[in-house]
Order: sequence, then structure tokens, then C-alpha cells
Amino acid sequence: MTAADNRSATRSGIRTFEPTRLHFGGDYNPEHWPEEVWAEDIRLMKEAGVTMVTAGIFSWGLVEQRPGAYDFGWFDRVMDNLGDAGVQVCLATMTASPPPWLSRQHPEILPETAEGVRKWPGSRQHYCPSSPVYRSHAVRLVEQLATRYADHPALALWHIGNEYGCSNPVCYCDVSAADFRRWLRERYATVEALNEAWSTTFWSQRYGDFEEVLPPRTTPTHANPTQQLDYARFSDDALLQCYLAEREVLRRITPEVPVTTNHMPHHKPVDPFRWAAYEDVTALDYYQEPYDSRTHIDAAAAFDVTRCAGGGRPWLLMEQAPSAVNWRARNSPKPPGAMRLWSWQAVAQGADAVLYFQWRQSRGGAEKFHSAMVPHAGTDTRTFREVAALGQELAGLPQLAGTRCRAEVVLLADWNSWWALEQGSHPSSALSHRETLLRHYQPLFDAGVPCDILPPDRDLGGYRLVVVPNLYLMSEQTAERLTAYVRGGGHLFVSYFTGIADECDRVHLGGYPAPLREVLGLRVEEFWPLDEGAGVSLRGELSGRADLWSEAVDLEGARAVATFGDGELAGRPALTRNAFGTGIAWYAATRPEPTLMRTLMDRVRGEAGAAPVLDGLPPGVQATVREGATGRFIFLLNHAGAAATVTLPHPARNLLDPGGKPTTSLTLPPRGVAVLGTP
Amino acid sequence: MTAADNRSATRSGIRTFEPTRLHFGGDYNPEHWPEEVWAEDIRLMKEAGVTMVTAGIFSWGLVEQRPGAYDFGWFDRVMDNLGDAGVQVCLATMTASPPPWLSRQHPEILPETAEGVRKWPGSRQHYCPSSPVYRSHAVRLVEQLATRYADHPALALWHIGNEYGCSNPVCYCDVSAADFRRWLRERYATVEALNEAWSTTFWSQRYGDFEEVLPPRTTPTHANPTQQLDYARFSDDALLQCYLAEREVLRRITPEVPVTTNHMPHHKPVDPFRWAAYEDVTALDYYQEPYDSRTHIDAAAAFDVTRCAGGGRPWLLMEQAPSAVNWRARNSPKPPGAMRLWSWQAVAQGADAVLYFQWRQSRGGAEKFHSAMVPHAGTDTRTFREVAALGQELAGLPQLAGTRCRAEVVLLADWNSWWALEQGSHPSSALSHRETLLRHYQPLFDAGVPCDILPPDRDLGGYRLVVVPNLYLMSEQTAERLTAYVRGGGHLFVSYFTGIADECDRVHLGGYPAPLREVLGLRVEEFWPLDEGAGVSLRGELSGRADLWSEAVDLEGARAVATFGDGELAGRPALTRNAFGTGIAWYAATRPEPTLMRTLMDRVRGEAGAAPVLDGLPPGVQATVREGATGRFIFLLNHAGAAATVTLPHPARNLLDPGGKPTTSLTLPPRGVAVLGTP
Amino acid sequence: MTAADNRSATRSGIRTFEPTRLHFGGDYNPEHWPEEVWAEDIRLMKEAGVTMVTAGIFSWGLVEQRPGAYDFGWFDRVMDNLGDAGVQVCLATMTASPPPWLSRQHPEILPETAEGVRKWPGSRQHYCPSSPVYRSHAVRLVEQLATRYADHPALALWHIGNEYGCSNPVCYCDVSAADFRRWLRERYATVEALNEAWSTTFWSQRYGDFEEVLPPRTTPTHANPTQQLDYARFSDDALLQCYLAEREVLRRITPEVPVTTNHMPHHKPVDPFRWAAYEDVTALDYYQEPYDSRTHIDAAAAFDVTRCAGGGRPWLLMEQAPSAVNWRARNSPKPPGAMRLWSWQAVAQGADAVLYFQWRQSRGGAEKFHSAMVPHAGTDTRTFREVAALGQELAGLPQLAGTRCRAEVVLLADWNSWWALEQGSHPSSALSHRETLLRHYQPLFDAGVPCDILPPDRDLGGYRLVVVPNLYLMSEQTAERLTAYVRGGGHLFVSYFTGIADECDRVHLGGYPAPLREVLGLRVEEFWPLDEGAGVSLRGELSGRADLWSEAVDLEGARAVATFGDGELAGRPALTRNAFGTGIAWYAATRPEPTLMRTLMDRVRGEAGAAPVLDGLPPGVQATVREGATGRFIFLLNHAGAAATVTLPHPARNLLDPGGKPTTSLTLPPRGVAVLGTP
Repeated sequence: MTAADNRSATRSGIRTFEPTRLHFGGDYNPEHWPEEVWAEDIRLMKEAGVTMVTAGIFSWGLVEQRPGAYDFGWFDRVMDNLGDAGVQVCLATMTASPPPWLSRQHPEILPETAEGVRKWPGSRQHYCPSSPVYRSHAVRLVEQLATRYADHPALALWHIGNEYGCSNPVCYCDVSAADFRRWLRERYATVEALNEAWSTTFWSQRYGDFEEVLPPRTTPTHANPTQQLDYARFSDDALLQCYLAEREVLRRITPEVPVTTNHMPHHKPVDPFRWAAYEDVTALDYYQEPYDSRTHIDAAAAFDVTRCAGGGRPWLLMEQAPSAVNWRARNSPKPPGAMRLWSWQAVAQGADAVLYFQWRQSRGGAEKFHSAMVPHAGTDTRTFREVAALGQELAGLPQLAGTRCRAEVVLLADWNSWWALEQGSHPSSALSHRETLLRHYQPLFDAGVPCDILPPDRDLGGYRLVVVPNLYLMSEQTAERLTAYVRGGGHLFVSYFTGIADECDRVHLGGYPAPLREVLGLRVEEFWPLDEGAGVSLRGELSGRADLWSEAVDLEGARAVATFGDGELAGRPALTRNAFGTGIAWYAATRPEPTLMRTLMDRVRGEAGAAPVLDGLPPGVQATVREGATGRFIFLLNHAGAAATVTLPHPARNLLDPGGKPTTSLTLPPRGVAVLGTP
Repeated sequence: MTAADNRSATRSGIRTFEPTRLHFGGDYNPEHWPEEVWAEDIRLMKEAGVTMVTAGIFSWGLVEQRPGAYDFGWFDRVMDNLGDAGVQVCLATMTASPPPWLSRQHPEILPETAEGVRKWPGSRQHYCPSSPVYRSHAVRLVEQLATRYADHPALALWHIGNEYGCSNPVCYCDVSAADFRRWLRERYATVEALNEAWSTTFWSQRYGDFEEVLPPRTTPTHANPTQQLDYARFSDDALLQCYLAEREVLRRITPEVPVTTNHMPHHKPVDPFRWAAYEDVTALDYYQEPYDSRTHIDAAAAFDVTRCAGGGRPWLLMEQAPSAVNWRARNSPKPPGAMRLWSWQAVAQGADAVLYFQWRQSRGGAEKFHSAMVPHAGTDTRTFREVAALGQELAGLPQLAGTRCRAEVVLLADWNSWWALEQGSHPSSALSHRETLLRHYQPLFDAGVPCDILPPDRDLGGYRLVVVPNLYLMSEQTAERLTAYVRGGGHLFVSYFTGIADECDRVHLGGYPAPLREVLGLRVEEFWPLDEGAGVSLRGELSGRADLWSEAVDLEGARAVATFGDGELAGRPALTRNAFGTGIAWYAATRPEPTLMRTLMDRVRGEAGAAPVLDGLPPGVQATVREGATGRFIFLLNHAGAAATVTLPHPARNLLDPGGKPTTSLTLPPRGVAVLGTP
Repeated sequence: MTAADNRSATRSGIRTFEPTRLHFGGDYNPEHWPEEVWAEDIRLMKEAGVTMVTAGIFSWGLVEQRPGAYDFGWFDRVMDNLGDAGVQVCLATMTASPPPWLSRQHPEILPETAEGVRKWPGSRQHYCPSSPVYRSHAVRLVEQLATRYADHPALALWHIGNEYGCSNPVCYCDVSAADFRRWLRERYATVEALNEAWSTTFWSQRYGDFEEVLPPRTTPTHANPTQQLDYARFSDDALLQCYLAEREVLRRITPEVPVTTNHMPHHKPVDPFRWAAYEDVTALDYYQEPYDSRTHIDAAAAFDVTRCAGGGRPWLLMEQAPSAVNWRARNSPKPPGAMRLWSWQAVAQGADAVLYFQWRQSRGGAEKFHSAMVPHAGTDTRTFREVAALGQELAGLPQLAGTRCRAEVVLLADWNSWWALEQGSHPSSALSHRETLLRHYQPLFDAGVPCDILPPDRDLGGYRLVVVPNLYLMSEQTAERLTAYVRGGGHLFVSYFTGIADECDRVHLGGYPAPLREVLGLRVEEFWPLDEGAGVSLRGELSGRADLWSEAVDLEGARAVATFGDGELAGRPALTRNAFGTGIAWYAATRPEPTLMRTLMDRVRGEAGAAPVLDGLPPGVQATVREGATGRFIFLLNHAGAAATVTLPHPARNLLDPGGKPTTSLTLPPRGVAVLGTP
């Protein structure tokens, strides 16, 4: 396989990344080591089945030791070594962290907090995303790099920046302030429009001129909510502009080479759906928490977001840890088998690459205790053995590459709503976008029902069920589309505190949730958040417990499937169902506890006709499907602590078991994985 | 009733606010809405029985859109609409929050924290209280406003500023530093006097010149206590000077219109007793916490402070929430009946007005989820119905206006002591002025014994019992007055860590509490604060548990009513009683737990002859009395969760029950209220 | 006894402090009081048996009221009063806190946090340790002081500064930054060497010039670990340079007067072992926490550090509280007898002086609630009585002065390792140098086994057992010395996460702990930190529970004394023993809970032949020995809450019991103390 093999579809200006097998490898930072180690690196990469590495992420400091004095000699040798060994390179643009000389010459590139505290060099990403100085130096470097390696045979993919906004998601400095004002002028054109959007008659905040506007720096009390919301939008955009500035250079010099950047999961500052429009393939870094028994569900949602952001095309697991990380308070290694299980999970959810941070464990620096494919203790280690075994295993199933996942259920997620939801000054500060998304995702995951996750402006036509978890901020257009979706026969599930505010965080008047009242057949008169630790019982067709939140609902056509059993709202509707047009719209005015949520969601998706991959899955076993020209593959992953037996409707063979025969009953050990091929 | 009806006693330069009925209404911010909504506002105000609104609090940004360019046209229409409808206006001076152009022109008006962090515009009150720039712009605006509306028939009362010090209570900027030095020169005249007062020989802090003095900004370790105490005094004064600068303009232009400002309850930065000397009527904002089952007791103490600060005259409940607020972590609505109950509680404790924040719920901005009289969901809502019902109910009892409460027990509270008490470097950081005040207040409240709350420099002659809860800082003069009070037959109850330091926070030498040793008949040798979670038993005539604090007491004439039953102080006095002159002085060397505190306080007030409003009150039922020229009224308020039956000594009629007949046994439902009139 | 009596060994340029009796006294701050109080001070000092006071610590502000205008008149009288009364003076250099005029003239002396927050005057130690302005003003003052009192008969000892680094341990200002660069140039000579040491290829941190280097100010994420480590070293050194600058003046003017400075216990910013090379006698401030039932064990370790830093010579307990302190959240007095017990504990562990902060309790200022020898309540107090009684008691045993402690067990402690260990980005943030040291120290203390505590570069030849608790950072040389120690017959106990990184915080490659693998006979493949609250069982010859940490160990010659009984490492070695050369090397791959730790350590020291002072000590009774020319003395201290009977192998007499007779069975009441003399 050559690097060009990945680019089968770069015709007509659309670059894609379509490898002919599952890639395997990781971040490669040879500059940490003397060159005599490099030969061993190549030898061990072959041993481990490495097909791709990401190189150069933090190499700026070495290739440009003085301003404008570029020295790529050592990096040429790295590229050649890799190319000679047939390892493809996902080549980083090296701009993630500027060298010390840049911030010494230009301290104004350093980011500042809302309190005016400057963030200094000494770690990484110490730049203001709006900084023209940073951007121009970055672009200058990318120009050099792209020119030098445009035709290098190892170059497979550009890796722009690194984890944008990980450490510098928002900056409040004067440079950012000026850029924010520019952004606002573009968005609003007139200061009157801004005043209207920001509701500045409140608390005497009316602006007479754009020049008066500032970032939401620390204020005596709650800052203007729309100012905060727009600052989140602006900050995301400032990072995106950094990315786009580099991308433009790459497009010009290497128009045929696809580009990507690695996102972090559930990363509030960066909207992956918006960025994906500018990525040829989407990529994710995901670090499971071995101490958390449900880390794979959080991962599953992040994987779905990454796949869906990329339009359903295969994506790249760009970073994961071979074993422990080093940046949590207490960092557990991954127990035997866990790394394999979680790697296969990514593939099961559509990934075409399993990559790690990093190849060889650092001897010094802030990540020396982060595990690597080649640990401090060398290759006679559990970690290296597990890595190499997985490399071989992935190499055995090239037919998986390019196949895709399909879902009949979609959950809506919206970064704009996230930014608005978690502000202060709301009925309850306990609402969390991530937590709520997972609360709705988990019962579907547990049931083995494949899900997509999309922002609300995408086409919902192909789905049997649309789940809308606490989408606080919702435009009238979205509400109209959801209404039309149900009218036309769709099934919709909406939960509490959804559809409350418009894009400017102004309440939709006319009884909550005004733009959804018709389709839901109800009116919410009052929000009734529950106290910490408090719960409420539900009674009716469905019964159980709920917590966190409740609402005073007046029915306007909907039917109560459950009512509150106690508390101030006793007897009032808690869960409702409304037949509307030829579809059904459900509403949850509270947060059911997990068991009730599972019962409820089973019923909702059952009515909608959204089926699981397999019926009767044992608890903890995840089941997914990928299919394509090479066949249809069912993945079974046992996340439970005990062995589990899965009954199949038709005999199938586990492709990971070389001697396995077709069977209808498959027992997975703890952390076991099976890939069932077309029989 | 016209606005002038409120001012029956403005003769001889003393302005008072004496409405002829109970006022009802709230903050009115029509600028949030298009003018077409205003007509509906007026119509609904009539429906709800509104008699007074507060207008203009945050209108600066709209009436002065550019420096010096005033536009009151829209506000004229607001005033006229209200006047035409017979709604009186409590007119705000509009200075609570300067518009963005002011801090852009003069960034030096922005306040700074002790760490040097500037607080930026974007919320409210982003001004340094010492700023001459802020004050001059505020005064300029007030001059315009007062001139324009001096003769407007709707103008009933001036509302200066708003919640002074809510968001900018203390500023540490250079402007404040200079003002602090000016203030210190006035207070101490010579730097030698300051050195003496501040004990600056300690830690080499001696000042050679006032110019060396700074605010207590962040220091390597504990800052000088008297520097901190004086800074609290200065900061309170800086806010008061803002108020007085505006008041001076109003007095000049509208000498007959009374003025007020709305305080926050138990607000440490602002001493309500000191300010009240400059207020024609006192006013309070109080926001109950529905999740807290004892929120009404905290409220009761705040109401008493507000009434007593105003010399016992009726006061204004200037703000309360119709239902939920939005600024706590989790914000519960007020359950059905709670708003009515708590509103009547204010009246029962002497209020002549029940007002809300705010009239119409905001669509945007930081308080859009704060409840309002007219909710987002409109008037077909529980909230509006309860509001309107209360408006009608209050209208039915005009005879309550002007009547007063009387008390035989007074608790002493002193903001100076509060400021000194809660500094670091004390025996225990767990002492809290507010908590301690309530611990002493609650057993009296629960027993139905009316209380006043006053600073220690007021006349105590009329009281049967004086309660002094942990008044750490006490002048010799106060101690002498308390001693004389007991000598003359008064009953005094003093609790631990009282009378320790003088006005400069220097310890009174000679055995604690030196200036009270004679009257208490004891000496405290050592403070023995108890560890977190630890308790101690008490034995003797009174027995039970105590916690938080203990002291090693040597008796010098007093008698031990209880001794410590365990711990290092076992056998030593815990609660003492001293017959002194013709009076009695009690001392608590520890903090009794609530049940023992109730027993103790019942005995203390029993001996003093301070009787409850009614004997045998059921738990949770509050009883108060107002009386005046129109009669004597007993208020009964059921704060308990269950119905409660109150036995009356004489037949009385519940004036809130139109068909009710005189009875001696009255059953109050949960959250029920009765006003018993003279039969 | 005259001041010169302390200096019996100042011959040949080596100054020592060797009093002929145990000193008793405290900090004396007469400037807090009018001169009329001073005569009483002297009278009461005699009554209390005071022999030495520390004077002048915070007198700078009074003796130099204007820059360069010195006024020592009042201090002359203080010195004369003391001299006349035969009280020796430990004379402070008065430089601990600069007066306000200095920071007003030179605000650049104020320290700054990593966030850029300036620390202002108003408390103490508000100076940047690198400040040349501060240092020059301090030296100028010391020159005056030394010249004036060089020949004063009361001058016994110089007390340089005070608690260096207590409130200003690290400064990040520009002055510090420049000084750091100077320090780095001296350390590394070339920027290439610094790049190598700091592993700056990581995250693009390569420096092109020393001028680019900054302190580890607040960064977007984890700062470079070696930058942080070197900053800790530099910051310690900056404080030491302040000390040395003053010391140089004193050596020149008063070459025969010994010098010291008072350290704080377990004080991370200051390495007492490094400083001790420049101190003629070591001194410690220790404030027990009466609420903590094991405070005496923490104290014991700090006492051992102080004694060992001084080469085993007697040391000074420079400050302790007569009763309560005032700077904890809740401050308990010392119960009756506790102060005596803990004072004798210092003597039992080698102190020749028992001093207090402070003589007379302040009336004002931030420490007015800190107890003193003469309390607010005067001398008719428990505190004064206990103080005076102890003064008399100590006076009765002059033969103790100059005797020494001996130990057969040494624990290694290393401030460099501490600085490196507790950084972020490690496998677990729950590792604490202090906690770990105490976990290893306590079982030896409880068994009555005397211990030394030393840094790893000292001679280990004389010890039977060397204990190495979690010494993360270890040079190859240290590892070689430990290996040689065992090879030659020594017993070594090493616990988890030891020997991991070199002096530059770079991992020793080749399997953990690479440089100790040979002596320990094992390899650690992976660190497996345990989750908060989680534990693991151990099985084998030794069994029990462990927590906090575990490791995957491969044996390479060692034998497993216990294996993990559950968890992911079940069956793998947990505690190992390796016969190596003629010695034994133990390894603990986890943290045994206290009871197992006691069993384990009893066995380890038993095999090593390290005996307790007395066999069969009752729980809670501490036993130590001092010996010298005047005899051998066994100290018994009952830290338990109940009486305890100690059986002696030979009859001995309790020297604290005037009428006591030799006995072999001695019963100590709670908080009881006995000093057994040579029979």
C-alpha cells in the first residue's frame, strides 16, 4: 500500500482519505531521541505492524531554531526512513506550539484569561488564536514544509495543528477583543442589530459603537448571556481561522493531499460539525478512563459524533493510549485486553485507523509517564506485546476498510445550544450537555441500537426516530423542521428545557417550548428544577423515579404516559405522547433514572420501528454493523466483567478466530471481541 | 390615593413615607419591550391591583446614549401612562449601572479586586465606589432627572441607586487607595494615631506617612486586622457617599419628595443602621429560598433589621420574587401559597408595601429566568393568578397601613463587630455573625416573642431583655451601658466571644471579656474552640449538647447553671447566671444546640417577663402584632407543612376570611395566613 | 551562665553553640508595649526561669523609621535590661519584614505569583527573595546592628531573618526571572546543556538563548517538569543568598558569635540539609496540632531532620506555642500537660533549648490570638503556671545539655526528589513526600527505634538499616552507593516509585527502577496507581491490606514475601526480599496499611539487628536516649490518652521525680514524662 492508495477519490477536487486497509500506528517524535535510536524504531514498527505515523507535531522549535532559519535536514531523514520502510506519514504542520523565540519577540501572542492573567510559554499552545503574528509565522512555516515534502512518497495526509483549543480555547486579550469586534461587525453590520440581539436594554448595557464592546472578561456579576454565547462562537471561529489559514497553503501547494486535524471528544470550545466541512477526513483523540466502568459509552458517543461529522465516511482514531495516561489525578493502565477491546470498538463504529500517542515513551518532559507503544521498559512488556498483536490482527481484515455504519435513530447535538445551556443565571446549574446527551444515548447503546449524532440543521428524512435531549437553544426553523418531520410520520422524542431560546438566547414567547408546543401538544408553564439529591416518583403507564428537573405541564392534546407521583407537581404530566399528523411526539418533563429511561426509550424506539443489531444482547455487550462492497460485518464487544454468550439469528464465523467455524451461539470472554463476517 | 398621600408628615423638613394603604407592585422596565406592549402593561397592572412601581433602575444607557445627550422622551411616556392610571412611581435615579461609553472613556472607573483583577463591563455595577468620575456623571444625570420629573404627579418616592454594594462592595484600585488615605486622614488626623490604632509595631508595619498606606490587597499572609476593619468601614462609607451625593441633588430640587434605597438582607458590606439616618423610609429586597425550610426565620430577622433601622416605622419590601429566582445553583419556584404567606409575613413584621422584581419577565439578558408578575407564559399562569389575588387581598385591608410592631426583647447586631469577627487569624474561622444572630433569634421567633434588632449604641431602656450574640468587638462605652442596664434591673443575655476587642480590634486587657466581667460575674481565661463535627455535653440545671466553641470560665460571683460534662473543660461552667444590681446577666460560654437553646432562652425571657404574642403556639406558626390608630391586629402565619390550630384567648375574626366569624380556635392550612382584627 | 558560655568551641574558626544548660525562653517583642511594661517583663522572666530570648525579629520598622535614619536607643535599653537580668539574647537581624517606606520607594521588591498577582505590604515578608534592593537594605541594617551590639554582653547568638520562605517562598516577577537566568547560566554554562537537561525537544520548547527562559509562570497546561524542578532549586537558593548576604556581614563584624535561622518543619520550599552547612546550630519552629492525635509523630520526624541537619549536635526548638495558635481554621489550646510533654519530646530528641513564640501576648495585630507565655489574662492562668513550672523543671537538669542521640536506622529524605515528586503529570497526584516519609517513620517510632533522617548523599556506613521511602528522583551515584551498601552487608528497604528519574527528572531507562534493579533483584514493568478509596489485599508470608499504589513487578532474583491477592495484579509480587552480596534489599511495590507496615518494618529491622530503646513499649509511649560526658539518659513520653506502665531492664530513677527511687517498673500518667538517669 502506498500513500497514494489512500486517495482513490481525489478526482474533481474532492479529496478523501480511503485506505485499502485499516491503518495502525501512532505519533512519532524521533527528535526526542538520538539518531542511533531511529533504526530500531523502524525495525520495531515493522514488528508491530505499523502502517502510518503522525510526525512533526511539536517540531517547530527544531526546524526553525531562529526566526526564518529553517533546517529540515534531520526531518528529511525521518521522512526517508519511514518512506523506505513503507510507513505512511500523516504529516503535522508543526504549528501546535510556537518556539520560545516567538513569544519573546512578540509577547502579545500570549493568551490571557478572563481575569487578565497571561499564559506563559513552558508548556504548549501558548498563543492567542486571533493573533496575526502567530498566524503569519505558522503559515510561513507551513509554506516551507508543504513545498519541501509535497512530493515525498511517504506523505499520505496533512495533520494541521493539533488538538485545537485544548489548552488555549478562549483568549480575552486586547488582540482577541479587536478581532471579536471585527467578527461582530461582520455578524451584525450595525450596532443596533447587536443591541437587539444581545438584549442590551437590560442592566443599561446599550452600546453606542462597536468599539465599546469587549470580550466577557470577569464582571461584577453575570455577564450578558448573548455576549458570552457570541464569544464562544467567535472563539471557535478564531481557532478555525488558524486551521483554515494553514489549509489554504496546503491546498495551493499540495492540492491532491487530503487534510485533517485531530479533535478532542465532547470538547465544548470546538464544534466538530462546523469544522468537518473543511476536513477531508475526520479524526478523533480518545483516552478511555479505565477506572470508569462506562467509559466505553462515553467513547461510543464521541465516535458517533466523529463519524457523523464526516458524513458517515470512515474516520481516524488519531490518538489513544496504549495503556495509562499521565494527566488525570490517578492514572490507571489499561488492563489486559482493554486496549484491544476499545480499539476494535472504534473500528466497530466506523474507524479505518487505530493510532496512538505515541510511538516511543518519552524520557523527559511533561508526558514521560504517558504510556507509549514502546514503553520505558522496552519491548519485553505487556504493552508492546498487546500492541504488536493488535497490529497483526488488524492487518488480517483489510476488507473492513471503507465499509460504513448505518443508523435509524439520530440524536441531535448542537454546540450553540451547549454554549448557551451551561451559562449561569439559569433555573439550574446542574444541567450538562454532555451528561444529558449520554443519558439519552446510553439506553439506545445498551439495547444495541445504532445511533447517529447530528446537529439540528441536517436532513432527518432517513431516520425512524429523532431524539432531542435538552436542546435549550433552538431556532424557529429547526422547530418547524421537527414539526414537519412528525407530521410526515416521524417519531420524535424531546426532553425537558428544549426549544426555550432562540439563536440570540432570547426566550421564545408564548409558553414553553413555544415553537414545539404544537407538535408536542402541551405547554410548560413553569420550570421546577429539583434540589441536589432530591428525586420524584412517576406513576402511570410507565413508572419509576426521576431527578434533576421537573416542569409544570399543561396538556394541549398530548396524553400523559406518566404523571408525577409526589412533590409539588404531584398528579401533573411527567412523560407525554402526542399523536401528530402521521407521527408521534414524546416529551419528558423530567429526567428518568437510568432503568426507567431504558424502559421508556425501548418503548419509544419500538413504536418507531428502530431495531437493535441483535435482539436479546447480554448486558454489557455492544453490537454494531459495518457494511460495504466487501460485505456486511457484525461486531460484538464484551464490555462486561464476565463472559457473555450471544445468540445469533443465523450462523456466522468470527473472523478474529482463525480456526473458528460458523455458529449461532458465541461466547465472548471478558473484554472479548468478535467480528462476524458474511457467512 | 395620589402620590402626595404618602407624604403626610413632610412638615418641618422631615420627609416620611406614610401611605394610606398597603402598596403593591414591582420593578417596571418597559424599555425591555416595544411600546405596543406598554398599554397591556397598564391594563394588567389594574387587573393585578398594582398601586406602585419602581421605574428606571437600569435606564441610564437609554436616556443618555451619548455623554451629556439626554433623551427622556420615551420615559416621559412611561411616567404619563403610569400617572394616568393612578399608579405611583418610586422613581429610580438610574445610576446603578453606567453605560458602556463611560467605562470606555474612563477605564479608571472599573473596580479591582484585592488581587488586582479588573472587573469589566458586561453585567452591572462595574464602578469603583470612590470614583469621582462615576459620581460626577451620576450626579449630572440625577440633576436632569429630578428637574424633569420634580412636578410629575406620579412621582411618589425617589429610589436612589439600587442594591448598593451588591456586585461592587469593595474595590482595591488606586483611586480607592487614594480615597482611603483621605478617609484615614480624616479619621486619625496624624499617622501616629493610625499607627497606634492599627498596632503597627507588629510585623514591622509602622507607617511614616499616610501616603504609604494601601488597601488590604492580597498579602503574603494575614493582613493587619485593623487595616481590614477600617477598609470595611471605608468601603461602606464610599458607597454611602455615592448615595449621599445623589440625595443632595434630590433634596435641593425636590425637597418634599422622600428618598429611599433598597438594601439586601444580612449584607455584610453595607451597614443598614448607619445608612438609615439618611433614608426617609427603609426598604429591603428579600428572596426566600424555597428549598430551605427555615428561610422564613432568616427573612424574619432581616425584616426586623429593616424595621428597626427605620426607627420602627413601616418599611417597604422593595423586591421579592413572584416565584423562582435565577441566581442560585438550583432555583425552586415558590410552591402555591408560599408567595402569599411570605408577603404577608413582611406585612406582619411591619411592611407597608409588597413589591416584586419585576413586572414582566425579561425575554433576554441575565435575568430572563427570574420570575416576574407577568411570566413568559403570560397571565394564564399560576404566578399571575396568585399575584393578582394577593393584590386584591392587600387592597382590602387599608387599615393596616401605618400601624407598628412593638417588642420587649432586643438583639444587638453590629456591622463593625461583624467585619472584625470574621477575619482570619482568630481562634476559630467557624464563627459567623449571621449564623450566630439566627441561632439566638430563632428560639425567640419560635416562641412567638417579638424582637427588635438594633446596634449597641441605641437606647435599651424600654426593653425587658437584651440579647448579645457573640459581639466580638465592643467599646467600653457599650459595655458600661450594658452594665448600667442590668444594674438598673434589666435582663441581659451574652454569649461567647463577646466584648473581646475595642473599636480598633485591640484586645481589652484584664481577662476576657474585660469590660463585661463585672456584670457577668466571671472571667474567661482561655478560648477553647471545638473541632469541626465535635460536640460537648452540658450538665446541671440545664443539660444537653453544645458545639462550635467553648471557654474556660472562672466564676467571680456568677452561678453555673450548667457545666461542661466532658472534654478538656469537664466540670467548668458552661452557662452562667449573675444577679447584678437589680437585674440578671446570663452568659453562654458555648453554643447550645437548638433544643437546649430554646429551653435556655425560654427561661431567660421568662425571668425577664418578655411574653409571646400568644401562648402555646403550634410549631411553625408565627404570630405578630401591629397596632396603631386603626386598631390592633394579630397576624398568624403557618410556616409548617401541616395544618395547625391556634387557640386564642379572646374571640377574634380573621379579616382575610370575608365570611369568617369571631372564634377562639382557628385552623390554618399549610401556608395559611390569618389577620385577626379587633373584634 | 553568660552568653559566652555557649561558645566553648569557637576555636579555630568553627563556631558552635554549646550551652551549659537547657535554654528556656521565647520571642520578646517589647516594642508592642509601653516601656513601663518592660520592668514587669524582666521580673516575670525571672519567675518563669527564662534564660534566653529572641529579640528584634520585626523591629526594622522602628529602628529605621526613615531610610538610613537609624534609631537604636529604645533597643539599647531592651538589650541592657536583658543583660542586667542575665537573660541571653538570640539577636534577630530584624530583616524579616521591610518597613512600608521601602516598598513604597521600590515597588519592584514586591513578590509576584505565577499568575502575576503582586503581594502587597500589610502582613510580612513582602519581598522578592532575588531583589537586590531588598538585600542591600537588609545588609545595610545588619551592618549597623552588628556593629552596635558586637560587644554587648547579652548577645549570645545571631538569628538571621525569620522563617525564610514562610510567606514568600517563590516569586515569579521579572527580577526573579533575570536572577533565574543568571542562576541557569551558572548551572548549565550553555543553552545546549539546558536544552538537554530540560528535554526541550518535547512540545517545541527548545531555547536558542538563555534570555528566552522564564520562570514557570502560569501556562496553558503542564509546564516543563525540569523547569519547575530547577525553579524550586533556584527559589531555595535565592532565599539562601539572602541569608548568606547577612551572614557575611556578621562573620566579618562578630566572627566569634554563632549564627542560626529558624526553619519550619517539613517546609518544602527550603532544604534544611543544604542550609545547615551555613548554620552554626540548627533551629526549628514547631507548632503541634492538638486536634491531631498523631501530631507528635510528625513532630518527631521534624525534630530528627533538624538534629541530623546539624550533624547530630544539639539543636534549638526556637518557637512553639505555649497553648493555642491562631492561624489554623480552628485552634485548640494545648490541654494541660501537653505543652510540657511536647517540650520534653524536643529535648528527648536532642534539643538544648525550649523557646516559644512569644513572651507576652499581643494586644493588637494578626497574632493577638496566638498564645504567649504571658497571656492576655495575665499570670494567674494555667498557661503561665505551666510555662513557669517547665522553666524550673528544665533548670533542674543541666546535665542533659550537650548530650546526643544515636540511631542505627536512617531514612533518606531529599528535597530535590520532593520537588520533582509532587509535580503534575505523574501516574498519581496522590503521592506526598511528607505523608510517605511519615508512613515509613511511624512504625519505627512506634516500636521505639531511634532514627536519623538524612539526604542520600551522606555516609551510610554506620547504619544497620537504610529506609528509602518513595525517593522518585535518584542519581546513578546514589543508586551505586546504596547497592554497595547492601553488597557490604547493609539492609536496605526501598518502597515504590523510587529511583525513577535522574537529577534532571529524566527517566532512567532500562526498566524501573533501572539503577536499583540489580540490588533489588527485580524489574517494575508498569505503575498501577490505585483509585481513590480503593485497596488491594496482600497474601503470602506477610498479609494484609495496601492502597494508593501498586506496580507490576517481574522478579529477577528477589523472592516475593507477599503477592497481590486481588485486582489486576493478582498473583504478582507485592513485597520482595533480595539477598545481595552480604546484605538484604527489600522492596514494597505498594503502600501497606499501617498495621501491615508495622509488621513488615518490625521484621525488616529485626533482621537488620536494629533494636528499640526498650523492648515491649506500651502503645503511645515514646522512648529515646541521649548520652554524653554527663551520662546516659532514657526519656519516656506517654503520648497515649491513658496511663502506661513501662518495664525497665535495669533499675533506674526518674530525674523529674525529686523523691523518686530506682525502679524497674514506671507508670506514666497520660502526657507523663520521665527522664531516667544513670543509676
